[in-house]
Amino acid sequence: MDLRFDEKDYLACCGSTRFAKEMALASPFASLQDAISTARDIWFNKVDVYGWLEAFSAHPQIGGTRASAPTTETSAQWSKGEQSTALATATGSSLQELYEWNARYREKFGFIFIICASGRSTDEILAELKRRYSNRPLVEFEIAAQEQMKITELRYAKLFSSRANGSSTPDK
Amino acid sequence: MDLRFDEKDYLACCGSTRFAKEMALASPFASLQDAISTARDIWFNKVDVYGWLEAFSAHPQIGGTRASAPTTETSAQWSKGEQSTALATATGSSLQELYEWNARYREKFGFIFIICASGRSTDEILAELKRRYSNRPLVEFEIAAQEQMKITELRYAKLFSSRANGSSTPDK
Repeated sequence: MDLRFDEKDYLACCGSTRFAKEMALASPFASLQDAISTARDIWFNKVDVYGWLEAFSAHPQIGGTRASAPTTETSAQWSKGEQSTALATATGSSLQELYEWNARYREKFGFIFIICASGRSTDEILAELKRRYSNRPLVEFEIAAQEQMKITELRYAKLFSSRANGSSTPDK
Repeated sequence: MDLRFDEKDYLACCGSTRFAKEMALASPFASLQDAISTARDIWFNKVDVYGWLEAFSAHPQIGGTRASAPTTETSAQWSKGEQSTALATATGSSLQELYEWNARYREKFGFIFIICASGRSTDEILAELKRRYSNRPLVEFEIAAQEQMKITELRYAKLFSSRANGSSTPDK
């Protein structure tokens, strides 16, 4: 395989401009695994703290649909898919509690709560949010970046499988 | 002693608005040591990553005199004093090298090189800059925050001693 995508495809997977540029420069990739190891190296060793914050702001808050920064249609659709378990298990009161804790989290840390939500219920997400809330800001910043990388990896898998299937639009 | 300063005095010591507000709220302090332990707790456990970046941008780059963000006259004077050893030991070529490495550092990390420069020569500062340049961004972010705290502590000592001496203007 010889896999190459546009900068905008990488940007839909992770909203840091620098990261997307570096991924485009590093392509083509021999495999999904090759792309993921390159991505980890770039994300943790080369993207600066502003790049991390830029990527975080491309997500809607958990339980929401709108990101604070402009984002792509693909990214918005993926977010919706990733939160489908959470939304299916949500009750009115758990969503209200999630909303309140999101606000509290953002007030403390300055960025939204980032979690790889795929397959997780609203209750699990809420418990994780409350647990992580007690972290000091720098620790939480690194955990958020690790969660962002998990999200990016899942999205790359979708992106690469769409190419392998010969489809021009990634599966949602 | 019962030591209390205005928010703007704390802001001249460390350019994070949130930090200055929290210090003003936490005052008065019984002693300089009391103020410093409170400051460490606020800086490392409460100020978010945006607050750290705001504080970094209130410094001129090492070897320079102008901060990228608006700052106070007191802060600018202190910066000059803190860099006096470096400037006294600088040669044209070492200043040029410092200038180039500063630019390289900023390009990699997104913020300026922060170092507690008091008593350090240009050569020592340059060696430290080159050594820290190889760090990954998150590691360097934390080191910069630790250096910022050292600078803040030295400035508090000046601020508190100016009050103890009954002077209304801190010594430079």
